[in-house]
Amino acid sequence: MPPLHLSLVTLGVGDLARAIAFYEALGLERKVKGATGAAFFMAGGVVLSLYPRHELAADAGVLDGRHGSFGGIALACNRASRAEVDTTLIRAVAAGGRALRPAQPTFWGGYSGYVADPDGYPWEIAHNPGFPLAADGRISLPE
Amino acid sequence: MPPLHLSLVTLGVGDLARAIAFYEALGLERKVKGATGAAFFMAGGVVLSLYPRHELAADAGVLDGRHGSFGGIALACNRASRAEVDTTLIRAVAAGGRALRPAQPTFWGGYSGYVADPDGYPWEIAHNPGFPLAADGRISLPE
Repeated sequence: MPPLHLSLVTLGVGDLARAIAFYEALGLERKVKGATGAAFFMAGGVVLSLYPRHELAADAGVLDGRHGSFGGIALACNRASRAEVDTTLIRAVAAGGRALRPAQPTFWGGYSGYVADPDGYPWEIAHNPGFPLAADGRISLPE
Repeated sequence: MPPLHLSLVTLGVGDLARAIAFYEALGLERKVKGATGAAFFMAGGVVLSLYPRHELAADAGVLDGRHGSFGGIALACNRASRAEVDTTLIRAVAAGGRALRPAQPTFWGGYSGYVADPDGYPWEIAHNPGFPLAADGRISLPE
């Protein structure tokens, strides 16, 4: 059996149509179009899915008592240049995201900023010269 | 510029060594071994990274007021069979995870259960016959 791998990341959302519009505005193409009540996108080597937050909590068997603050997980989109980081942040805010931290040089030798999606999930948009990107945007890690 | 894609998922953790031990027990191989204060694993086509939760919140420019309850995001590892789902759930609990929902047939024609990692982040371990897996475990989506 292969090691644990990350196949899907599901964001529990308050307004499915709003979340779909945000991610489509950032270029993600919806798949599994027959699915209703959920949305699925290929977001590189992993699926990004959107599902009503209360239904996601119920499916996982957890209590969903608290909304709207940091949930402990950050998502990241790595870009090939600092200019692409800036452009992506601007597009995300134009699409309904909320700027969290302006892009700036980082202590690890790269450049990044943060934007929250319409449900508040933080996305870091980063350029990291130490983590190579393939032509299709796929990331790899050095040893 | 390529569409938004998911390069890394960073889990903000309370105890970095404990989180590393959990994910290594599930077969993930640590990369970027020179990094201290953070851990990076290739988890299929995406990087799973571990970082102290308060530092992650500070990096993102968000307030981290609340720990220990559902943060709105679920991670998923899709498997090639129901038996692999069961085995993965058992291994995750043995490695220090907490069972959330036993594996059972799902309304979407598959089979899944949930386990929380040591910081409470929910992982769905699933077999979904409608979402094909490549030989290396990589997922794809139908139209």
